[in-house]
Amino acid sequence: MQRVTKLTVRFLSDKASRFVPKSGVYPKGYAVGGIHCGVKKDGTSFDLAILQNIHGKDASAAGVFTLNKFKAAPVQVSRKILKEKHGSGINSFVINSGNANAVTGSQGMKDAEDMVLVTDSVLENPTNSTLVMSTGVIGNNLPIDKILNGIPKLASDHLGNSHQNWIDCATAICTTDTFPKLVSKEFKIDDDTYTLAGLCKGAGMICPNMATLLGFFVTDAPVSPSALQQILKYAVDRSFNSITVDGDMSTNDTIVAMANGAAGGELIDNKSSSADRFARLQTEIVDFAQQLAHLVVRDGEGATKFITIKVKDALSYKDAKTIASSVANSSLFKTAMYGKDANWGRILCAIGYADVSTDKSVIPSKTSVKFVPVDGSEHLKLLVNGEPEKVDEERASEILQDEDLIIEIDLGTGGGQSADFWTCDLSHEYVTINGDYRS
Amino acid sequence: MQRVTKLTVRFLSDKASRFVPKSGVYPKGYAVGGIHCGVKKDGTSFDLAILQNIHGKDASAAGVFTLNKFKAAPVQVSRKILKEKHGSGINSFVINSGNANAVTGSQGMKDAEDMVLVTDSVLENPTNSTLVMSTGVIGNNLPIDKILNGIPKLASDHLGNSHQNWIDCATAICTTDTFPKLVSKEFKIDDDTYTLAGLCKGAGMICPNMATLLGFFVTDAPVSPSALQQILKYAVDRSFNSITVDGDMSTNDTIVAMANGAAGGELIDNKSSSADRFARLQTEIVDFAQQLAHLVVRDGEGATKFITIKVKDALSYKDAKTIASSVANSSLFKTAMYGKDANWGRILCAIGYADVSTDKSVIPSKTSVKFVPVDGSEHLKLLVNGEPEKVDEERASEILQDEDLIIEIDLGTGGGQSADFWTCDLSHEYVTINGDYRS
Repeated sequence: MQRVTKLTVRFLSDKASRFVPKSGVYPKGYAVGGIHCGVKKDGTSFDLAILQNIHGKDASAAGVFTLNKFKAAPVQVSRKILKEKHGSGINSFVINSGNANAVTGSQGMKDAEDMVLVTDSVLENPTNSTLVMSTGVIGNNLPIDKILNGIPKLASDHLGNSHQNWIDCATAICTTDTFPKLVSKEFKIDDDTYTLAGLCKGAGMICPNMATLLGFFVTDAPVSPSALQQILKYAVDRSFNSITVDGDMSTNDTIVAMANGAAGGELIDNKSSSADRFARLQTEIVDFAQQLAHLVVRDGEGATKFITIKVKDALSYKDAKTIASSVANSSLFKTAMYGKDANWGRILCAIGYADVSTDKSVIPSKTSVKFVPVDGSEHLKLLVNGEPEKVDEERASEILQDEDLIIEIDLGTGGGQSADFWTCDLSHEYVTINGDYRS
Repeated sequence: MQRVTKLTVRFLSDKASRFVPKSGVYPKGYAVGGIHCGVKKDGTSFDLAILQNIHGKDASAAGVFTLNKFKAAPVQVSRKILKEKHGSGINSFVINSGNANAVTGSQGMKDAEDMVLVTDSVLENPTNSTLVMSTGVIGNNLPIDKILNGIPKLASDHLGNSHQNWIDCATAICTTDTFPKLVSKEFKIDDDTYTLAGLCKGAGMICPNMATLLGFFVTDAPVSPSALQQILKYAVDRSFNSITVDGDMSTNDTIVAMANGAAGGELIDNKSSSADRFARLQTEIVDFAQQLAHLVVRDGEGATKFITIKVKDALSYKDAKTIASSVANSSLFKTAMYGKDANWGRILCAIGYADVSTDKSVIPSKTSVKFVPVDGSEHLKLLVNGEPEKVDEERASEILQDEDLIIEIDLGTGGGQSADFWTCDLSHEYVTINGDYRS
């Protein structure tokens, strides 16, 4: 795991100092933490994390999982538990990094079940109160003894609700990430003040329909299991399923949520009686999920740019997202962005081959494309109604110096639907990292 | 066009010496050639090619074009001519490289039409007897005067049927290719001896459903236009539409065929009366098209490996091809191959997210994967019926040293359908080339 060592060093990077919070405000009634238990071979990097509901009452939980046919053992086990308990009475998450426990046969299933069993036992939960996640290399069995020995050690001495505990937890789920991803915020619904915290890991193998993503949101708001599931699905569609790093979908992608109600107030449900509070929470969680998902793109393997693709005036949301995704996933577009090359032909090209629903979804003579600088300076038109603009290359090059860039694609169909998608560039560093992952 | 200079130098590469023929056998009744007319800015690289039927009788022609919504002007013009003439009376091809004449508005259409007009005039063809192709940068208008001045010069002094003429023609359609792609062969149908020659250009932006590919096959066999179209479509599906370099589909992809009957014999048609001769020709052309398509993969931008993905025992040909394509297009898989890393988990992962037709198309517990060395030495099993094998990493690393590799995926569905797909690795060089294409 050569990269883990690198990771530790790279934690001191510029990105880490810009995107890792120095403090936070965390939800009531949770204890979290992370330690090194021995999965990662460098002997020091954190590789085991636990999140525990300590509010004393059962929490609600929800989950969204990979669509990959080869679902890793922890994905299969967590889905089963969540389904059997209808999202009630899930009180902890246990996560290891360094090994994905994917394509590991029957031994892998037993190992994932044992992680649940031991966590429940150590935390004095009823049976099957824990969701399990793993991330890392595919196809090797877990060093399960190290993990099962690490769980009681972590639970007894290293869980808490301090900023450092949350950082430790976020660090312990990283693999090729160059910084831990943690966001927290306070918000109000009516007169009630609630808190949200979210952690995730990303880096490579990120694409729509869930990625090598592990993530969790926890809140002290009181939310019913079915409301939490509905909000999570909606938010993930508009955040983690609208980003790409390399277009690959992993066997382990999992985003889970927990709500323990420790901050009190009236239950937020998806019934009409609590429609206002439901909508309010949904807006908060979408915004929050986007913040977290953006961190994944910023830390895409080898990424030097953060690019927002805005598709406007599509016939449908699906078309808008398909087109945005097609551009965001084009290797040619992504390498051009890395090279600061205003090769907008590649954008057009990727719009043109997107697998849209109808012949009228993309009409070349109505399509316009522009660069939108994030500093508020003037837009740069590249194509207007299918006719190329005489592009000021100097200005284009100036805009492309920035780390952040917005590309706006106006399809002019009259349908009025839009979608945003976030991506990074494809760099030499990406090839270096992924050409030598396991060594 | 920095890359053009590089190209000239790189023509002396190892690949060029291995894959460029020293001699050939060429079909009767054609004159071909290439020159530098001034599109490429280095002042010397060939950038204009013509192929002319000089048999004295009208030839049959066929074409397969990009599905991209933003079809380049030459694609629109060539499709129109081919359709209007029902594949009869097409007697020449004119091609420029260095500029794709794509997304160039109404001026671009006029330029493509003018290339046809001038070529027909110079070659003394009836109106609209020429198909036009362009390849290179998108979004700039052609330096049309240079091309229109180059056509008569090329036609009067540089067309012929020597090996060098064919090499010149193949060279003049290259962009980022590191070697010209030319194949020729003689074959027999009954007692008739025919000859096939094929040229193409590839490099970047190569994916299924046509790529930045220009290619043409010409033969001296007598073939009806509808038979030629049917055979071309079938052959392209199993060759140029079964390769990938970076998964991008260009605005300019065009494969055309011409048959002038100069070698005599009975007409090959797609009627039952000539079914045997039709089948025989189709087999020859499929095999031939695969040879040419493989050269495109070998010359993929930055490619160091040539990888065959063989999917067996799928429920349908479509499933087999979808799965093979998913693996072949995975950036993570391709970078692992570049790094000589036997990370077969990434293969599984890409199988698992392929967009197959039914729930029974991929059954993890029936899926097996192995490396098949091309030197005839023993296979290396990676996964058998969904359970990972204990992989001999030393042996895996040995196999991955070879330039060529076959990956065999047995889906075990009982459906018995199979498909092959060809791809290359994703290297540092790819990023370098594409990060700085236009400079």
